[in-house]
Amino acid sequence: MEGGKVMSEKRNVLVGQSGGPSSAINATLAGVVEQALTSAKVDKVYGMKHGIKGVLEDWIIDIGIPLGGPAEQKRLIHTPSSALGSCRYKLKSAQDDPAAYKTIFERFKQYNIGYFVYIGGNDSMDTVKKLSEYAKEHGIDVAIMGAPKTIDNDLHGMDHSPGFASAAKYIATTFAEVWCDAKVYDYPTVTIVETMGRHVGWLCAASAVARAQGNAPHLIYLPEVAFDDSAFLEDVKAQLAKSPAVVIAISEGIKRADGKYVCEDEGNVTVDAFGHKNMGGACRVLENLIRSKMNIKVRCVDLSILQRCAGHLASSVDLHESRILGSIALSRALEGVSGQVSVLNRVSDDPYRVEYSTVPSYTIANHEKPVPREWINARGNDVTEELVKYVTPLLGGLFGSDLSAGYPKHFGF
Amino acid sequence: MEGGKVMSEKRNVLVGQSGGPSSAINATLAGVVEQALTSAKVDKVYGMKHGIKGVLEDWIIDIGIPLGGPAEQKRLIHTPSSALGSCRYKLKSAQDDPAAYKTIFERFKQYNIGYFVYIGGNDSMDTVKKLSEYAKEHGIDVAIMGAPKTIDNDLHGMDHSPGFASAAKYIATTFAEVWCDAKVYDYPTVTIVETMGRHVGWLCAASAVARAQGNAPHLIYLPEVAFDDSAFLEDVKAQLAKSPAVVIAISEGIKRADGKYVCEDEGNVTVDAFGHKNMGGACRVLENLIRSKMNIKVRCVDLSILQRCAGHLASSVDLHESRILGSIALSRALEGVSGQVSVLNRVSDDPYRVEYSTVPSYTIANHEKPVPREWINARGNDVTEELVKYVTPLLGGLFGSDLSAGYPKHFGF
Repeated sequence: MEGGKVMSEKRNVLVGQSGGPSSAINATLAGVVEQALTSAKVDKVYGMKHGIKGVLEDWIIDIGIPLGGPAEQKRLIHTPSSALGSCRYKLKSAQDDPAAYKTIFERFKQYNIGYFVYIGGNDSMDTVKKLSEYAKEHGIDVAIMGAPKTIDNDLHGMDHSPGFASAAKYIATTFAEVWCDAKVYDYPTVTIVETMGRHVGWLCAASAVARAQGNAPHLIYLPEVAFDDSAFLEDVKAQLAKSPAVVIAISEGIKRADGKYVCEDEGNVTVDAFGHKNMGGACRVLENLIRSKMNIKVRCVDLSILQRCAGHLASSVDLHESRILGSIALSRALEGVSGQVSVLNRVSDDPYRVEYSTVPSYTIANHEKPVPREWINARGNDVTEELVKYVTPLLGGLFGSDLSAGYPKHFGF
Repeated sequence: MEGGKVMSEKRNVLVGQSGGPSSAINATLAGVVEQALTSAKVDKVYGMKHGIKGVLEDWIIDIGIPLGGPAEQKRLIHTPSSALGSCRYKLKSAQDDPAAYKTIFERFKQYNIGYFVYIGGNDSMDTVKKLSEYAKEHGIDVAIMGAPKTIDNDLHGMDHSPGFASAAKYIATTFAEVWCDAKVYDYPTVTIVETMGRHVGWLCAASAVARAQGNAPHLIYLPEVAFDDSAFLEDVKAQLAKSPAVVIAISEGIKRADGKYVCEDEGNVTVDAFGHKNMGGACRVLENLIRSKMNIKVRCVDLSILQRCAGHLASSVDLHESRILGSIALSRALEGVSGQVSVLNRVSDDPYRVEYSTVPSYTIANHEKPVPREWINARGNDVTEELVKYVTPLLGGLFGSDLSAGYPKHFGF
């Protein structure tokens, strides 16, 4: 029976999430699951808990059942952060850690995995690259694909990174609201708001969109330009001469000309498993700097993890694109493609149009995409209109997160 | 002509806002304006900029024109913080500062003010009390009324304070989202989230509503119970034994048995014009405490001003009630009542029903309403179901803030 033959060729999908969470990474997971559940080539859909570490540890669960219906898939899309959990585990090369590769591919065999999709940032795309090269070298028939995400917008090879737009929407909304709050008093005040962005300033730059709705932020400082304390104090004084309430956007990763991060003044920088510095606190350094030099009210607001988990403000454009990128990554795996990452590129700003494709994982892994210097003003304390034009179409409307109970309803495994 | 006679009796309305901003204080302003614009007794509607200070300084503007239509009124309702600006000016007694009273009542005469509505917290209700007593003593025909607001929910004489519910909705939503973010890793982490609340813990307590949607917060510490470092560390260890990700809610005003605020350890407490301490930083003190005693990842999130200005998440119940309270304050003034404050009291939880009335301003001014001790558990590290039952009906749905551009559209004078 031909039907029986087709059945016997069915293989299983394994999907995972890695790196820092975002408000859109579960939309990508939903895209993979939807695609898997409607494919004739797929039997079961498994999820690895805590990324690749979950494969090593056998933390593998059947996610096709809890995500079997459209209502559960919709709720997953609206749930921020990584529903499958994440990890900061860095996969070494096959030469340096052959045992890890042996375990991973044995696990694939054990679960009859034919298609593997890993959702994450450039470290995760490095994992896709390594696993797909290993499979190819050893003649193992598992298609290994990547789907991108990172709120930092630093992924190479695509117009913007899924997850960025939702964080940018949170930031633009927050600056519009902080402006309403900051301007209520008649005496001079400085409000410094710190966004994420270790090495690139895209998130901080997105604050400029809020100016469509008020005057904030008055000053924007990104890691792409060396930070200078004296120039900063001059900038603040010049703004205070124009407006009693000054709102400043800074990236957590701003650093001085000597390469030292501003936040390192507070001495609380730690390093994670990828060798990344854990940042935060630059706003307090600058708050203290202003307080020591000027007799005015100054306060600091650190958007911290709120900017990456505020699912109730997720961008409809971001959720839509993220879902499609998950779907495409698995589609190509089902066609036998391996070692590639789904990407999107912008065709036009107005109307906003993108096209989707896949590119080799090595074009994305371990690269970074900074804000172009020409999108930052000469003095390095603001961004240009080109940047605002780039970010604005990504913010979209609200996607309709269910807040009927007074708080969002989330999905959980 | 009788019509002419009525016309000649028309007098003007003066309205102002004071104290810390909230997401609902402009709804109260809209309620006053709507009522004024439809009253046969009212000619013009004036707003004082920066509260009572604006009367002293003659910062008085005609707000009936920019707020003349329903579209502008609706946009005002959705705009967080005080659209007229605020002040921290403390009006002294008439004995201590007769010149201020002379200026204020001359200004009323200059602008033909017959009806004065002051929107604010208990310090503002003290201003209502003083001005109304002065007017009565001196036989001056100006009705002085108050409309309540304070996110802290510490106002006496009413079921809850307008503005509290929107901040509570922001807090409940944020804890539900922080939980999604906090639980992604498989290693132990502690996330401490600090809410506002100098002397009372209502805002922090509202975090418990998020448990309908996850496990966070695991521990809740309010200013109503003396904070003990050793008990806190024991609580954290006990929770870590049950869950790798522990989320803790603390109020900025938590203090130890000796009355010293936890945030004072960092030595950055300043005092405002009302003699109120400017708080903030307790979460960093506790972050450092945990880091010094346990080898785990710990981070601190300070909700700062975000909780009081997140208009995009305002509670529909709060905006509705706040608007009505503004309307009632002016209605009673138009009837000749003075020295009173509009309030609301709950008749039932399910269905949620309230009734509105006015009470003398002295019953509200300079009092505080703490969280009842019986709504906090015996150990002082959590709240009871009664508290959750009290807060939940206040959160409402979304009122439909216009986010079509990707960020909220605000009103401004």
